[in-house]
Amino acid sequence: MCELLGLSANVPTDICFSFTGLMQRGGKTGPHRDGWGITFYEGKGCRTFKDPMPSCQSRIAQLVQEYPIKSCAIVSHIRQANRGAVALENTHPFTRELWGRYWTFAHNGQLAGYETLDTGRFWPVGQTDSERAFCWLLNRMESRFPVPPEQPAELFAAVAEWCGQLRDMGVFNMLLTDGEFVMTFCSTHLHWLTRRAPFGEAQLLDEDVTIDFQKETTPKDVVTVIATQPLTQNEAWCQMKSGEFNLFHYGECTLSGVVPV
Amino acid sequence: MCELLGLSANVPTDICFSFTGLMQRGGKTGPHRDGWGITFYEGKGCRTFKDPMPSCQSRIAQLVQEYPIKSCAIVSHIRQANRGAVALENTHPFTRELWGRYWTFAHNGQLAGYETLDTGRFWPVGQTDSERAFCWLLNRMESRFPVPPEQPAELFAAVAEWCGQLRDMGVFNMLLTDGEFVMTFCSTHLHWLTRRAPFGEAQLLDEDVTIDFQKETTPKDVVTVIATQPLTQNEAWCQMKSGEFNLFHYGECTLSGVVPV
Repeated sequence: MCELLGLSANVPTDICFSFTGLMQRGGKTGPHRDGWGITFYEGKGCRTFKDPMPSCQSRIAQLVQEYPIKSCAIVSHIRQANRGAVALENTHPFTRELWGRYWTFAHNGQLAGYETLDTGRFWPVGQTDSERAFCWLLNRMESRFPVPPEQPAELFAAVAEWCGQLRDMGVFNMLLTDGEFVMTFCSTHLHWLTRRAPFGEAQLLDEDVTIDFQKETTPKDVVTVIATQPLTQNEAWCQMKSGEFNLFHYGECTLSGVVPV
Repeated sequence: MCELLGLSANVPTDICFSFTGLMQRGGKTGPHRDGWGITFYEGKGCRTFKDPMPSCQSRIAQLVQEYPIKSCAIVSHIRQANRGAVALENTHPFTRELWGRYWTFAHNGQLAGYETLDTGRFWPVGQTDSERAFCWLLNRMESRFPVPPEQPAELFAAVAEWCGQLRDMGVFNMLLTDGEFVMTFCSTHLHWLTRRAPFGEAQLLDEDVTIDFQKETTPKDVVTVIATQPLTQNEAWCQMKSGEFNLFHYGECTLSGVVPV
């Protein structure tokens, strides 16, 4: 399996603290040795840092932990390969353009029969079930909505239904973002929490690091963090249910529901 | 204007030496302060490092200079903004998927009337003439070849014709790669050289750095470097003509010609 990490915030926020915790699971406190990646959105643009080598040994991961890139939407993933070789083209997150926006996707789980998913004009480059599922989702999105719907909820409710179909093929926990919205779908394991004033201290589970968000934030900040497993030991993480989807918009949950099996 | 740097090699080769020279032009020995980017291919996958801040001050550029990522196809760009604001979404290189391959593009120049270029399903995300020209090229490629032609020369000869049409709209120097082929089109300024045994020493023009390729290579290595302006002072760089295109395949020039005005 793999681990996911996402962020949605109303002010550009760096993820160094949470990323530091996640990276320890890339071969040190966790078995996810088969690559890692992280995508930061800045305006309509995004940049991805990825490496097929274990995050706990990666010099690029070290830079990302130390270099605070501030973003309102971040998606990260560390990989334990199941489908697809350990290679850069199989390293999450995956990014494709649709409707003049960059869409970024990361998946935790494993799908059966994914080879038959019709991806239309979105051809997978690598061999993972994850990238094929992403291409299938994009193809569904474009087929249903040749231009993006005026109400984002209409789009993401449809995406949730399609995620339910993927969940029925195996295990499908995912993060999807266009830089403004961050959508989650939970099949087995996904947790989240929202930090807002009054801010307190948080301590990482995987590394002896504590942060006082009071010092790092303003009273108006709203920062939601999503992770496969809780990253801190003294905060109240909410566990998502199987089939639950959530849509975060600049830190606030604006749409939520459960897709029945 | 901007500066381009490309590499095509028959063995995975790092570009730290040439990149170090180029980065000095990003605000130090050159005026290109408006961002920089570099894309490395590894197998079918690629990874891009980019920053909207001047390369000579960029911590990420520092990492790329020190961290030898070995690749057979590399495209890099430093930007002096003309069309489009200084922003991440306007920072080259641009990468899109077509036919299950990632295509990466960087442009030096300026086009008039680019707003009317029909990009079909490839929607630009940013505001540059460069990204729109790239989307237009991809749309032409896909329209002419719903599946990639068996003979790559057939594809790239067509791309050269389309590059000629873009050149007629202004200044269009470009690098285009799918990770296997590196194509160049020269409108005003583009130079190249191929390093092969017997290897010698090279000295950067922009920084007091010398490298002895003899120590870094094997006798079978063939490494072609493409740059807007020569990067070294003691090597014989070939200047490309206006309208000249070249196709490099693992370091060797396999197709070349001139598109008349």
